[in-house]
Amino acid sequence: MHKRPGYGTLIIIGGHEDKTGDKLILRALAKRVRPTGTLVVATVASRQPKDLWEEYKAVFRRLGVRHLAWLDISERGQALDEKAAEILADADVVFFTGGDQLKITSQIGDTPVFERLKALYDAGGTIAGTSAGASAMTETMLVAGDDASSSRVANAVQMAPGLGLFAGTLIDQHFSERGRIGRLLGAVAQNPRTLGIGIDENTAIVVQRRRLRVIGEGAVYIADGGSMTYSNLTEEKEPDRTLSVFGVTLHVLSQSDTFDLTTRTPKAAPSEEVDHELFDSRAS
Amino acid sequence: MHKRPGYGTLIIIGGHEDKTGDKLILRALAKRVRPTGTLVVATVASRQPKDLWEEYKAVFRRLGVRHLAWLDISERGQALDEKAAEILADADVVFFTGGDQLKITSQIGDTPVFERLKALYDAGGTIAGTSAGASAMTETMLVAGDDASSSRVANAVQMAPGLGLFAGTLIDQHFSERGRIGRLLGAVAQNPRTLGIGIDENTAIVVQRRRLRVIGEGAVYIADGGSMTYSNLTEEKEPDRTLSVFGVTLHVLSQSDTFDLTTRTPKAAPSEEVDHELFDSRAS
Repeated sequence: MHKRPGYGTLIIIGGHEDKTGDKLILRALAKRVRPTGTLVVATVASRQPKDLWEEYKAVFRRLGVRHLAWLDISERGQALDEKAAEILADADVVFFTGGDQLKITSQIGDTPVFERLKALYDAGGTIAGTSAGASAMTETMLVAGDDASSSRVANAVQMAPGLGLFAGTLIDQHFSERGRIGRLLGAVAQNPRTLGIGIDENTAIVVQRRRLRVIGEGAVYIADGGSMTYSNLTEEKEPDRTLSVFGVTLHVLSQSDTFDLTTRTPKAAPSEEVDHELFDSRAS
Repeated sequence: MHKRPGYGTLIIIGGHEDKTGDKLILRALAKRVRPTGTLVVATVASRQPKDLWEEYKAVFRRLGVRHLAWLDISERGQALDEKAAEILADADVVFFTGGDQLKITSQIGDTPVFERLKALYDAGGTIAGTSAGASAMTETMLVAGDDASSSRVANAVQMAPGLGLFAGTLIDQHFSERGRIGRLLGAVAQNPRTLGIGIDENTAIVVQRRRLRVIGEGAVYIADGGSMTYSNLTEEKEPDRTLSVFGVTLHVLSQSDTFDLTTRTPKAAPSEEVDHELFDSRAS
């Protein structure tokens, strides 16, 4: 079912990554930019793109990134212009900010900008995203649904086609902070082929060759529905019926733990491991 | 390990049970009071006991309960007095309100009031509790720990000895609403013998003879650590290290689903079942 993945790196962030302290996650992005390469900040999802660009520009400058570029697409017409894609020409890293994931997919899906993005990823580049920019990475993405205060997710989980860079998974962000376990399980129950990944704030997964690794402060929750024995999703009851789902396998991963996406097995961080070590940086 | 449970009924509520609409959960309590019996509202956990008593008295009156009594213990000395226990003499149902679960256990633990409560339960009575009153039911109870906004529960989960009426389990309440999955898993990882039960607001479990049934609006999350393959609880790292725990089995139950506490197996509500049907009411 899974397409052969690209050979690049994905850095998928659960939102609210630290911008003033040790900046562990944004530093991981910065490390992947070669001296001659560019880090592109894509504010496509946002309604305050300029503010976000200014903020991230300052942070990445402080982290030593020399070449920064701003991909600001406020309407689809701009992404259809071949020239818009040229900003990605020297990119080592493209970083999608938060906002609305539907803005990302509806404005750059099937455009030259996306083609260039995909080519960059397939050639070993890094695509990163936080919050909405995280959700947009998968083939199918979560776009709405009841939030923290409800488990009535059975029919309230809304999905849409995502960028398709991270096959076989669904991402939810701000995970513990917004109490989204019910929504993630509701999504996984719809098709246990899809692995549900919930990422806390100031926490990220670094994905390379169907293996992911956790960096940052919080936890990453992985819901594997393969062991699911029952759900009430398809029963004809009130549409806002509360979800029942039995037998999901849940893993909670923290800093430096890894997960093999092919075999669906977690692996604990080796105890001697330096906490801040990341996956191989891009060879320069 | 488990002591032989009493033959009474526990109704354990995740907080914020409906008091103005169909009052499904409080109605379940009211139904268990015989015409000659008393429903005792125990405000021991609260710092505004009088307000709570007035509020619940009015609701239970509307639900047709004739005899209501108020168990108001603001200091342990009162519970040591044999006369305080007499209020429980004709009780069919004792209902513990919200507040601080440590107030319940520190003030009535090992007192004549508790002895009478236990005797009532063993003789087939109903003990109910919401929020703090729910947490207090178990042998070991959750009393603090990081809340919604963190998965750093490894060493932040605080426990204390509870009332011990509901053996082999740990209860957390306001579950989806306060994003407490991390805290529950942190507790379960400490000893997978203990089943973790997270109850949403306006949702309850009715427990009889080591079987529970869900009533109300939300979901009940049951975390079974028997399948757990790893946790980082005992590793010597920073004390606020984020939790890692692999391979927990998670069940989400909704209205009328049941769970066998002996075999740890969930069972879906039969589709023909009347939603509002409860476990057998107390024979009158």
